[in-house]
Amino acid sequence: MNSINSYIKNNKQRFLDELVDLLKIPSISADKAYKKDVLNTADFVLESLKKAGCDQVEMCETPGYPIIYGEKIIDKDLPTILVYGHYDVQPADPIELWSSPPFEPVIKKTEIHPEGAIFARGSCDDKGQMYMHVKALEYMTSTGNLPCNVKFMIEGEEEVGSESLAWFVPRNKEKLANDVILISDTGMIANDIPSITTGLRGLSYVEVEVTGPNRDLHSGLYGGAVANPINILTKMIASLHDENNRITIPGFYDNVEDLSTEERAEMSKAPFSLENYKKSIAIGDVYGEEGYSTNERNAIRPTLDVNGIWGGYIGEGAKTVIASKAYAKISMRLVPNQDWKEITELFKNHFESIAPKAVSVKVTPHHGGQGYVTPIDNIAYQAASKAYETTFGKTPIPQRSGGSIPIVALFEQELKSKTILMGFGLNSDAIHSPNEHFGVWNYLKGIETIPYFYTYFTDLHQQQ
Amino acid sequence: MNSINSYIKNNKQRFLDELVDLLKIPSISADKAYKKDVLNTADFVLESLKKAGCDQVEMCETPGYPIIYGEKIIDKDLPTILVYGHYDVQPADPIELWSSPPFEPVIKKTEIHPEGAIFARGSCDDKGQMYMHVKALEYMTSTGNLPCNVKFMIEGEEEVGSESLAWFVPRNKEKLANDVILISDTGMIANDIPSITTGLRGLSYVEVEVTGPNRDLHSGLYGGAVANPINILTKMIASLHDENNRITIPGFYDNVEDLSTEERAEMSKAPFSLENYKKSIAIGDVYGEEGYSTNERNAIRPTLDVNGIWGGYIGEGAKTVIASKAYAKISMRLVPNQDWKEITELFKNHFESIAPKAVSVKVTPHHGGQGYVTPIDNIAYQAASKAYETTFGKTPIPQRSGGSIPIVALFEQELKSKTILMGFGLNSDAIHSPNEHFGVWNYLKGIETIPYFYTYFTDLHQQQ
Repeated sequence: MNSINSYIKNNKQRFLDELVDLLKIPSISADKAYKKDVLNTADFVLESLKKAGCDQVEMCETPGYPIIYGEKIIDKDLPTILVYGHYDVQPADPIELWSSPPFEPVIKKTEIHPEGAIFARGSCDDKGQMYMHVKALEYMTSTGNLPCNVKFMIEGEEEVGSESLAWFVPRNKEKLANDVILISDTGMIANDIPSITTGLRGLSYVEVEVTGPNRDLHSGLYGGAVANPINILTKMIASLHDENNRITIPGFYDNVEDLSTEERAEMSKAPFSLENYKKSIAIGDVYGEEGYSTNERNAIRPTLDVNGIWGGYIGEGAKTVIASKAYAKISMRLVPNQDWKEITELFKNHFESIAPKAVSVKVTPHHGGQGYVTPIDNIAYQAASKAYETTFGKTPIPQRSGGSIPIVALFEQELKSKTILMGFGLNSDAIHSPNEHFGVWNYLKGIETIPYFYTYFTDLHQQQ
Repeated sequence: MNSINSYIKNNKQRFLDELVDLLKIPSISADKAYKKDVLNTADFVLESLKKAGCDQVEMCETPGYPIIYGEKIIDKDLPTILVYGHYDVQPADPIELWSSPPFEPVIKKTEIHPEGAIFARGSCDDKGQMYMHVKALEYMTSTGNLPCNVKFMIEGEEEVGSESLAWFVPRNKEKLANDVILISDTGMIANDIPSITTGLRGLSYVEVEVTGPNRDLHSGLYGGAVANPINILTKMIASLHDENNRITIPGFYDNVEDLSTEERAEMSKAPFSLENYKKSIAIGDVYGEEGYSTNERNAIRPTLDVNGIWGGYIGEGAKTVIASKAYAKISMRLVPNQDWKEITELFKNHFESIAPKAVSVKVTPHHGGQGYVTPIDNIAYQAASKAYETTFGKTPIPQRSGGSIPIVALFEQELKSKTILMGFGLNSDAIHSPNEHFGVWNYLKGIETIPYFYTYFTDLHQQQ
């Protein structure tokens, strides 16, 4: 099967050109203004699956954006891989911090990506990584190398909580029946340190609104006598962490799994340089929960971060105003065993309870999802590990990620199958940030590695 | 001199029409986009002073917006009144909360203003109150009733800190020489409870910026391990008040004047209904420094209010991001004896000192000014009191305001004269807020009252 290398060599430019075309469409699911673009992207994905050799391709309507389904069933006795990915992207702001426009992809060399990286919103998360699977399928079908059945399910609301997918999956269990779910929507440690993500954090995302007076007030005439919603909001948010940076919401840690000393020792073996970490994002120091290392803080421990805050006068110059309202978007990353709905409820009750009488508070749950852990003793993990060994020449390291793909826990619940997370992006690829990019080397390495997974998984499955 | 009543009656509609024309120009000094409008407003004021009978009118250039100067000197042996006002206005946002466009003035009746109020940004603060003086002058010059000399100094940067005025005044002491400074840029208790403002708070306005990582980060991949600038900013701001709502900046209260029990008892006699106060702005409770009443909290006590805060994703939907930067605009209202430059320095040092090593902090002073107290035993206060008695039929109550006109302290320092604050607006007029308005009755009552002040002040001055 080393025909994959020559196939990639012969089609490299086309693989890049097609991805660039896909990245040009601003499929921002969070902002209704981009609705048409999101739908155009769905069309693009549908056509690409047809061309890649799927026998049956469908635009599945949902209460929100459509889900693209495609399949190629070659033999009912062979195992079936379900590929999941998403065609929507994060908003691009702050736009002014992009060195090139977010939806005009350009390939530039960087220190970490000497062969060039594609700069565009969605290049890594997840259009680039999703499209690797489409191109890997194209290779397997066009060269007669597809060893098993394959199904694709590509959604358009991952960045806003996958609500329509959560609606779709339970209604289509038979159509989606599979032996393993394959996703590339995570990262690896470095191009020379391949890793497989074995854990994901859960998520609870809420929006809070604090209302003081019924109109903006003059800060001189009312200042000091009336609760200022912004001051109150800062006090309320600040109180959500104690002096050890532990979250103060009663019950928050009740179900958090405490890892054994051995497990923590094992985790700490992953290559990590605190100095490089600090340097890569230019911080004077790291900051987090007492008693845990940086890698533990963003993998096995839950968090509470304000993702956005606003209120009052934020224009040029000065305005001496006491705002009527102040707002924040707050997300909590959760670890396995924490139930996101329960945590959302705990947050809501606590946040409402700490508000002084002088203001009113509204907590609106946005979306959420459960955490997930992949067992490393199953054949999917073993097949993936072997695939990386083949193409990287190194055994990948199992690694828990701080990120969330809430839908993974739902897949297990509804479809009774495990998910394997083969991510080819890097943390430094700036997903969700300005100047998101995806290494050309990584893109092609993904296309190269995926068919090996198909083969090894089919083999191991047949041996069972 | 009751010819003033018939003069107002005969010219009422024109007085309103002229003010409406003035209010149509969006002279927002805080936003450079309105530069041309601010300059057009300066022209308007200049022309209006010519028409009102000033002998000499000048557009005085400054490093910023021009100051309009006008004078009518009738006899060097008579006293001179210097009228100060401003032609710039606050920004109008949040625009969507206005019931009519902020620069398309309309007259509507309200519960408090049964004769109608002019709704427009600047209607009360300060175009409407400033223009009362222009029309009062017109009456006095056109009917031969001007009893003394008068000078006008109308600036265009009051809402952004009066920097150019602070530059202009020391350079023009002779031109501005006067026996009293007269300002209508404050309010009174109610239309049937006239009051004269005898105290103003000082102001220190700063902007703070907290920087964490050098780019926005994915809150899953980095959350929990990296200081989130928004969380840190909320913690820093929250720490600026203690559990008794006292400001925690070391040295902040050092020079705050402690009023005697007698003085506080005297102050508490001013008519005030806590229930009506709460109802008027729809709050569940008041909120402020322990041990002080509502009227004390916003008159004799200093404050610290966040006037604006922003950071991270504030658009529609959700974005799981750790922002690189978070910002706030913070103002402190100061009481007499607190030096605004010293307080600004105390704030800066303290705020920088409480930042954890994981972030960097920048504090940028915006502008400020000293507080002020008018003695009630001088002839200017007595003349004003008599003028109100004549037109309102009631002795006005001396009242400390929570607002700031920082330039007043500078006037005393540079021009060695006292300021008398004859305000005709009401707290409920929503200055600095959406739906700012100014009662038609108040506008005309101001025009009626001002000439009496001229007469009584001249009389008392001659008797000295």
